[in-house]
Amino acid sequence: MANTDSLNIRVFSLNCWGIRYVSKHTPQRYAMIGDMLCKEEHDVVLLQEVWSEKDYLFLKKKLACSHPHSHHFKSGVIGSGLAIFSKHRIHETFLYRYSLNGYPYMAQHGDWFGGKAVGMAVLKFGSLTANVYVTHLHAEYCRDKDSYLPHRVVQAWELQQFVRHTSVGADVVILGGDLNMHPQDLGNRLLLSYTGLRDSYLEAAKFDGCENGMTLVADNPFICKKELAPFEKGIRIDYILFKGSSKTAVYCDFMSTTKGSVPDHPFPYSDHEALTSVLRLETRAETERDGPRTSKNPDSAAGKAAELVDIVTEARTEVKVGLHCAERMRYTASRTGAMGLALLILELAIAAVPWLALGAEQPFPRTSFYLLAALCFAILAATALLYVFYTMELKSLQGAEDQMRLAVGSLQEKLRGFPLAQPHDAHLRPPGGQGPGVFKPEE
Amino acid sequence: MANTDSLNIRVFSLNCWGIRYVSKHTPQRYAMIGDMLCKEEHDVVLLQEVWSEKDYLFLKKKLACSHPHSHHFKSGVIGSGLAIFSKHRIHETFLYRYSLNGYPYMAQHGDWFGGKAVGMAVLKFGSLTANVYVTHLHAEYCRDKDSYLPHRVVQAWELQQFVRHTSVGADVVILGGDLNMHPQDLGNRLLLSYTGLRDSYLEAAKFDGCENGMTLVADNPFICKKELAPFEKGIRIDYILFKGSSKTAVYCDFMSTTKGSVPDHPFPYSDHEALTSVLRLETRAETERDGPRTSKNPDSAAGKAAELVDIVTEARTEVKVGLHCAERMRYTASRTGAMGLALLILELAIAAVPWLALGAEQPFPRTSFYLLAALCFAILAATALLYVFYTMELKSLQGAEDQMRLAVGSLQEKLRGFPLAQPHDAHLRPPGGQGPGVFKPEE
Repeated sequence: MANTDSLNIRVFSLNCWGIRYVSKHTPQRYAMIGDMLCKEEHDVVLLQEVWSEKDYLFLKKKLACSHPHSHHFKSGVIGSGLAIFSKHRIHETFLYRYSLNGYPYMAQHGDWFGGKAVGMAVLKFGSLTANVYVTHLHAEYCRDKDSYLPHRVVQAWELQQFVRHTSVGADVVILGGDLNMHPQDLGNRLLLSYTGLRDSYLEAAKFDGCENGMTLVADNPFICKKELAPFEKGIRIDYILFKGSSKTAVYCDFMSTTKGSVPDHPFPYSDHEALTSVLRLETRAETERDGPRTSKNPDSAAGKAAELVDIVTEARTEVKVGLHCAERMRYTASRTGAMGLALLILELAIAAVPWLALGAEQPFPRTSFYLLAALCFAILAATALLYVFYTMELKSLQGAEDQMRLAVGSLQEKLRGFPLAQPHDAHLRPPGGQGPGVFKPEE
Repeated sequence: MANTDSLNIRVFSLNCWGIRYVSKHTPQRYAMIGDMLCKEEHDVVLLQEVWSEKDYLFLKKKLACSHPHSHHFKSGVIGSGLAIFSKHRIHETFLYRYSLNGYPYMAQHGDWFGGKAVGMAVLKFGSLTANVYVTHLHAEYCRDKDSYLPHRVVQAWELQQFVRHTSVGADVVILGGDLNMHPQDLGNRLLLSYTGLRDSYLEAAKFDGCENGMTLVADNPFICKKELAPFEKGIRIDYILFKGSSKTAVYCDFMSTTKGSVPDHPFPYSDHEALTSVLRLETRAETERDGPRTSKNPDSAAGKAAELVDIVTEARTEVKVGLHCAERMRYTASRTGAMGLALLILELAIAAVPWLALGAEQPFPRTSFYLLAALCFAILAATALLYVFYTMELKSLQGAEDQMRLAVGSLQEKLRGFPLAQPHDAHLRPPGGQGPGVFKPEE
């Protein structure tokens, strides 16, 4: 083994279920979470659903000694609920808001108001640059008929884009959060295959926690057993993912989750289980470098590209389903709006007839007239807003689909073994008669 | 000179002013633009304000031979208006929507509906990876009293974050578009200082175009002279920016702009002038590498950090002004809403009095009653929507301010000469008794 230096980093992730006045025992649970974090002194703490600024400030104060660096990502109306606490200085943060995130009129689900996003923080572990991401995707309310699936798939698509493009210079990449996706769900496969991130649970040398790494378990007293069906024991939707770089190898030595209850406490930290991963970072020897990035085995690279084509194609299909659905909704909104307008015109016409037949008595009861007019205006205003909203949804879905088509095209070209970047006319104008050797297309 | 191979890349940027049924001579101008692009065969064409999908498809068809690769970035209700045409294959695209972009009720300005964003495309120029960005920031309607300034500053902040974080792996970075900022404007300084991007106009060895590189000129017949005041001759708000990397040096050999008219045509391409930059990419010799990234002169690095601190602090101040303004607007919305509610309750009370005094005649004229009730409901609905909107604006402004504060803190620590990344407890557990030498904090 060529690696000589190693650094252990402990990462914690928890969906705090911090909806003020709705979630149960919120203040007590935050106090418990604060005590535990203060004691455990993880290097990086990634929290979701810290909806209230007050709760964040409570934790910030409580963790001032153990985790002096923190950031609360702000987005949407009440969100994004994402927070990071760190023992290491946070040098920078950056937030990417997902373009799709449910519907504002689905207030009972509330996701839209949360402004779901992925937050990034640049940390230094010694001399290593670490890009740490925390995110929370749209919830799944009904697995059999999941109307939010296209939105979640687009979120996963944007998440992988964001992580991939912003983490090029990082030595270590860590992503934690509530993805609201089962391990084999499309979005999860998209994320892992495209970014090369590895799942702590699957990689851990040793694991201590719920069966199958589940993070939403029937044993948790805050969980409604009915909602878990048909997954009686629970599901795994929270993750800590990681990857290294050409310079740094990352291993997961140990992973643990809470098990639905906390010893010596009347209730658990949250309705989700908390995750802890112990990552070991090792600097690669010079000879090892460039290994993991540019695969030396062309067959494996081709296999990977083929797998990606399949997954992205599957995602495109899902986005197209979303597109049809959004188009239908927009059509319904415009038709309803047109009916509202027609009704208004009809009403005005009926009212105008006696008015034009000078002096004739108004047969239209005044109360009905005004109520109907108000109804028409309300319909017009609501459908106009919905039309604008659905148009924005359509644009985002079309945008994601375009990007996916482009990515599949590029992957397929790679697969066909064609040069990756054959320009039509590369404008090669080598000065001094030197050949364009350096600028040959790759491969 | 250690560089031996060079590649010339011609980049074009134009704000097309493509508002269907509003902009003048749109179809004719698109035909002109298409003809010119087809003939000129630039490597990369960056267009803004291509609002209509139809117009994009028209160009796509027209440029099928000269620029077989293209992408139209979709965002907002009618936007984002951003398009890229390329001779080189576009491998991937990614879109970042700015979190702030005007107000939906300012329909006459329309920016909100455009969903302003920055689009990124990954291209290959031979073996070189190029990240090409196209963007369009919020317009400036009144320079003296620019109520959109905080929004534009936040857009510039997010733009620099996006470019900086996504371009680490690129050999060449090109950014073109209508920034709606004068060269010395805060947002422009923020963008250039933070990213290290260089301005084609200032760097060009040779320039041919409008005086001072202006891109919105009085000589353009589509320009209303009044709106330019006090800049009688024009302003420079469109840019082509670029930078190289440790592997590649980039120089601007030539830059040109159109001059308010196009020979042999009755009108110009747009109300903005078109920009063309000829960039020369040269591979750096091995010995030269790492030069431009890690400055060898600590004084210059400190000077740069100090300059950044000043600029970010200035930006923070501007964002705080925006915060106060948004808070005031939200307060006004909630107060108006409360008044609407009070009026409704009062009205119901007045109407209820005779109803309770059984049989007494209703003194409230029915027409007034219904009209007043409708007005109250309209006020309540509108103020509720505005309250939600302003809360989202506040969240975004607070988020940007938090990020800026964090960045200033990190820069100041760097300036003070303290170690950049001193973890409180680095968890150094070197196996086999080896020292933690590799993991020393930087500097």
